[in-house]
Formats: sequence, structure tokens, C-alpha cells
Amino acid sequence: MPIAKVLSIGDELLIGQITNSNSAYIGSVLREIGIPVTRMVCVGDVEEDILNEFEDSIKNFDITIITGGLGPTHDDLTKPLLVKFYNDRLILNEDVLAQVESLFAKRQIPMPEINKHQAEVPSKCKVIPNKNGTAPGMWFEEHGKIVISLPGVPYEMKEMMSEIVIPMLKRKFNDKGLQFFRSKTLVTTGISESALYELIGDKSSLLKGGKLAYLPDATGVRLRIDVSGSDETLLERNLNILTENLKSELGIYYVGEDVRNEVVIGNLLRSLGKTISVAESCTGGMISEKIVSVAGSSDYYLGGVCAYSNESKVKILGVNEETIKSFGAVSEQTAKEMAIGCLKKFGTDFAISTTGIAGPTGGSDEKPIGLVWIGFVSEYDSFTKKFIFGNNRQRVIERATQNALNILRLKLLKNSPKN
Amino acid sequence: MPIAKVLSIGDELLIGQITNSNSAYIGSVLREIGIPVTRMVCVGDVEEDILNEFEDSIKNFDITIITGGLGPTHDDLTKPLLVKFYNDRLILNEDVLAQVESLFAKRQIPMPEINKHQAEVPSKCKVIPNKNGTAPGMWFEEHGKIVISLPGVPYEMKEMMSEIVIPMLKRKFNDKGLQFFRSKTLVTTGISESALYELIGDKSSLLKGGKLAYLPDATGVRLRIDVSGSDETLLERNLNILTENLKSELGIYYVGEDVRNEVVIGNLLRSLGKTISVAESCTGGMISEKIVSVAGSSDYYLGGVCAYSNESKVKILGVNEETIKSFGAVSEQTAKEMAIGCLKKFGTDFAISTTGIAGPTGGSDEKPIGLVWIGFVSEYDSFTKKFIFGNNRQRVIERATQNALNILRLKLLKNSPKN
Repeated sequence: MPIAKVLSIGDELLIGQITNSNSAYIGSVLREIGIPVTRMVCVGDVEEDILNEFEDSIKNFDITIITGGLGPTHDDLTKPLLVKFYNDRLILNEDVLAQVESLFAKRQIPMPEINKHQAEVPSKCKVIPNKNGTAPGMWFEEHGKIVISLPGVPYEMKEMMSEIVIPMLKRKFNDKGLQFFRSKTLVTTGISESALYELIGDKSSLLKGGKLAYLPDATGVRLRIDVSGSDETLLERNLNILTENLKSELGIYYVGEDVRNEVVIGNLLRSLGKTISVAESCTGGMISEKIVSVAGSSDYYLGGVCAYSNESKVKILGVNEETIKSFGAVSEQTAKEMAIGCLKKFGTDFAISTTGIAGPTGGSDEKPIGLVWIGFVSEYDSFTKKFIFGNNRQRVIERATQNALNILRLKLLKNSPKN
Repeated sequence: MPIAKVLSIGDELLIGQITNSNSAYIGSVLREIGIPVTRMVCVGDVEEDILNEFEDSIKNFDITIITGGLGPTHDDLTKPLLVKFYNDRLILNEDVLAQVESLFAKRQIPMPEINKHQAEVPSKCKVIPNKNGTAPGMWFEEHGKIVISLPGVPYEMKEMMSEIVIPMLKRKFNDKGLQFFRSKTLVTTGISESALYELIGDKSSLLKGGKLAYLPDATGVRLRIDVSGSDETLLERNLNILTENLKSELGIYYVGEDVRNEVVIGNLLRSLGKTISVAESCTGGMISEKIVSVAGSSDYYLGGVCAYSNESKVKILGVNEETIKSFGAVSEQTAKEMAIGCLKKFGTDFAISTTGIAGPTGGSDEKPIGLVWIGFVSEYDSFTKKFIFGNNRQRVIERATQNALNILRLKLLKNSPKN
């Protein structure tokens, strides 16, 4: 079974300027085709460290995917160091040059001189074309060890991985007795990691050598199942048995299979044939954005309002001025009227609302930073709940959003014909 | 000068289930206090790999920060392996136990048995209390090599780093002749990396040994300046000279110092004493969310509408039904009417709008996926612009958001008294 390493190059990663999302993407797509990544390393634009990693790669890994360091400036070392490492030389690749020239032509910008150098590639490598950028990828293969270099720009790298690298790796390793890997993640909410561990108990007989991992975050615990085997059909059947077993034990704590609340909500609304709108204040549009991020949301989502000022709550959502005067903008009454006003304005079957104090200013003894009221209404039902989310502005916004979506999900489940 | 390594432990990182944001955070906060991270490694829940990394740490690094593997379940290996590595044993820490018990008491949940084990700590370590979770951190120090273990849950780890670890490291290394590091990032937009490189030219005389790096992304190029020196005052003065020099050369391409458009926009609106509202469709609330993410945005942001359906564009924003019938929801005319309607409804000085086709469905030959119209209006000015952002839904939404904010920024700059 081939094993892989991911090597990310760039000072910007070491000083935390950029979060390394490339490694995670590469790890997951390699896993899908049965090639496990066992190591991820990040080094700076430093010749010695980079060359040491190349050395480690060909010694210890069948496949290494490198990202970064392919730009046109002097701190981009990957290509020159690959040339050095493989005792190679650069040659001008006409296809790459034509592709780079056409990129600039399409944008109607003259091509700067330095981009010509990006069209020079090591003679020993197979070129991996980059449709979206100026740096071509490179595939080196010597003594059965594969070293692939891709740009660090995520959308360029992802397309080259999915369109070219993954298919090439699949063809290469298909007949090498790969173990099939299957992974499934069940999302839970409303139960702590430890209580979940005690609820589920020992699943080793159903796991058959696989693993069950617990991944807590601010909104719940994800259960990651990993199984492997040489018989793909049997593997998938066992995975289904285990999954169904867990789902039935999880009951109300179960959100969905590795899906966000907003996807589950979309499916529920679509199956109910109902529509929703959202009235936000402190969450600023985040709830709306999450709902819209799901393709096809126009089937059930008519829109929302972010009524950030008191006046706009009155003018746009029809909240009573008296309500805000008497109870304040952040109150159960205002949350309820925001939701009702939103339901009426958009003409939807359901509406949710948020109003709160995200901070860092605006809190008081009576209404501290982090206080958020969440409302839900339908034609027949109205519900409000009070939360206190701590005093980190971004976390207040995120937790209010997550909890609003969770309340919506639970309400829709209650409304669902199955229940 | 002490150097540091960041070690992240967890299978979920290797299979790309989770993006490693912890390393980036740790890299940046260590850098602030003058301790460079020169290596970041990610290994799985595998004893041999973890122990090898501990070995590498004490051999090659003054400081290692480890995240992950401190949960209460069987796949959490960090603590048992630290005990093994340091030839240590576990002892029950009463303070930790009390803290864990109080966490559960506050949430009014009984504490599961397994959480008691989390209160057992290696006898040789200094405990780093975790106010937000059940796993305490650990600080080991032998022969001048520091190894720190923290939970993998980001908000738990961040608080422990900022409240305890960073101050302790500062005190420890203050008198060891640290080089001071200063970093500044200038955000540019509207110019390619190569053209920028040619525009700026050679800055080595002003850099005085420092580095200038180019970080392109979907919205522009960030210029990261890194300088270091033993004289903190001189260092800061040189950094300012270089920064001013670059800003004047960048002219209109310059957005701000490592600040997002929405922060620059907020500052401009506040200085102009003006207000803004947003009318979104395909961007779903993302523009509103970004504006609200800036603390104090209630000074200038009154709110926004996500009018996701045609009907809501008419009902909520006052777009003419005829306009949508004649030109379509995704058109210059609709974008303009959405912005004008929003300006009037919220009573703001400025308004921006977006209407487009994010995909994956809804495109046609005439109006392809990725087509987005962005509008801007003020009492005296109206402006629309057409974009085609490709066919990745999430990228269309993100790029439309970024471009709308950029247009707003440029319009506000024009309106600014300085210009």
C-alpha cells in the first residue's frame, strides 16, 4: 500500500499569515482513492529545509505532494531546488508558454517578462498543466518514488489535483492491491463528547478493526468512522450496518451524515414543501449566508433582513416602536416581533430571528455581552430562547448562528411527517 | 535565538477532515514575541510517529507546541506518550479535578467517569489550566528544551496560549538576546503579482536584510514585509520608512495595512459621518456579515436585505415587477433598482447591491453561471458593473462579495475629503 506525504512550502505558513487549507484538501482526496497521507510538513522558503524534505520524501514515502513556492519572484524556491535535487536543467516548454500568454491575453493585460521563466520546466519532469494560473505543476518519478509539485494557490491546486493528479495516481496504483478505505462522519449536537462516549459504548465488533473517533467543536461532536478492507462491497455493507446502528442509538442528538445544519434544513424544507425567511440583527447576515451556501436553496429560501439598527427593525420588519422602547432591541419580545414581521413581509411558512449583543461594547449588568435571543415562528407556533455566548464577538455571532439553525432544524423535524 | 516547532496530532488532520488552523495561530503569536517557528508537522494518532516527533523536538528545537490528542477517549495518545517519553507517571491534580467538576456543574450536567482521568497529569509537568475545557495543558522542561502540550480545540488552545503560554515564554526568553521581528502586510488589489513585482522593483536597500513576499489570492496580492534586528526602535523606524515608500508607489492599488476591505470601509464611513445599507441576492448575506464582523459597525451600518426570490426583490426592495419581467432578475436594471430601493427603505447615504447566478444551475448562453451585476448608489451617483466569476458556486459568492466591497471602498475614497 503506497503512503503519501504532503509538503507545504512558504514562510507565510510558518508565521501564520495563511492557514494551510491545501494539506487538508490533499489529505482527503488522496484518502478517497485509498492512498493514506501519514505525514504533513510545513517548511519555510529555506533551501536546506526544503532539500532535507525532498530527501526524506524519496527515502520514506511513495508519493509526495508539494504545494507552494512556484511563483515568479525570488522567494519561490521549489522549482530551482527540484532542478538541483534531481540534477536536472530547465527547458522552455512551448505549451506552457502558450497557455500563460493566453491567460494574459484573455484578461487583456500584457505579459510581464518574469512570467516567461515560469514556462521553463525541468527536463526530467512530466508537466501538469495549470489552466487557472501561470505556474505549471511538475511530476517527477524516479525509482518508483513520485514527487509532485503544485502551486500553492488553492483553486489552482485543487483543479490540478482533481483533474490530473488523482486520475493519474489511480491508474498507477490500481493493480497494487490497494486497501479500500471508507469514511463516514455523523454529526451530533446537544451532547458532550464524554456523555456520547458513554452512550455509544464499545463498537469494536461492528467496527471489525476500523476506528471510531470523536471530534468535538463549538457546536457539537462529530463521530468519524474509518474502515478499510480489500473487498469493497463487503466493506461498504459493514459500514452501512455500523452507521445505521449508531444513528438509531443517537436518536435526537443526530444531525446528519457529515452535513451541516443548513443542508439538513434544506432537505427538510424541500420535503415539507415549505419556505423560510430570516430576520437577523447581531448575526449580521451569517444565517442567511449559510442557508444560501447550499445549492438549490432558492427552492425554499425567499430571503432575509439584517435589521442592524433599531429604526430598521421598525421600518423594515414592522417591530413596534413601543416594544423596543419598553423591552429593548435585545429582548424576547423584539425577537418574536422580528420573526413575525419577517414571516409576513416575505410570506413564508417559517421564520427565525436573532437579536443580541455581540460586543465588545454594548453590554450591561442586566444584558451582558453575549446575550442573544433567538426566535422561531410559524403560522401556529412561536418559540423564543435566550442564550449567553461569552464575550468574543466573532464567537457570539457564530454560536448564535449555529444555535438558530439548530433550533430551526429541531422545529422542522417536529413538523416532519415522519414524526 | 530560540526556534520553535509546532506539532499537530490527529488522524482527522491527515484525512483532511479538519483544516489545521491551530498551527497558523501558534505561528503568528510566537512570531510576535520574537520566536520564529521553523517547522510545522502533522502526524496521526500513531505511537511511533508521535514518539519520533518528541525525539526530534528535544534534539532540534528549543520550544515545541503540541496540539491535539488530549481528549478522554482511547485514540487520544498525547498524554500517555508524554508520560512514556519522559519516564514519568500520572498523578491526580486536585485543582484540575475541581475545575473540570465546576465546568460540568455550570452546565448542570453530571460529570462522566472518564473525565476524571483527564485530571491526572504527569508529575514532571507544570499544569497549564484550561478554563474552557476538560483537558489541562502541560509544560515540560528538561535540559533547556521546552515541550508544551495543549488541547486541539481552537478556542481552548488560543486562550491558553495567549493567557499563559505566551507570557511565560516572554519572561523566559526576554534576556536571551532575542532578535526583534516586525511584520507588516500591505493589501493591494487590481494588479497582478508579476506587474506588482515589476512596479515595485528592488527594495533591498530599504529592506536592510529583511524580506518582501508576494501573496496572491482571488482578490489581489498581499505584500508581506518582514524585518528583524536587535534594536527595536531602529527596526520600527526603518519599517515605517519602507512602508511609506511602498504605499506611495502603490497608489490606487493600495487597500490598507493588512486590513480587510470592510475595515477600511468602516473607517471611511465613520470619517465621512455617512451610513450604508446592502441589497443582496446571490451573495446571500455575506456582504452584510462581513460588514457586521467589524466591531463598531453599528456606527455606519443600518442593515441589509437578502432578497433571494424575485418576489422579495419587488416586495421588500421595491424593484419594479416590469423591470424583472423585461430584463430579468440578473440585470443591470435590477441591480440598480435593488440598490436604490435599499437606500430609500433604510434611509442611508449609500447602498450597494448584488444580483447574479452562483450556480450550479440557472445559467444560460446569454446569462452564464458566474454572471453577477454589482450596483452602487448614493444621492448623486449610480454605478453598475458586470462580472463573470466562473462556475464554482462558493467562489462566485466570495468573489462577488469581495468585488462589491472593493467597489464600495473605491467609491468612498472618491468621496473622501482627502480626494
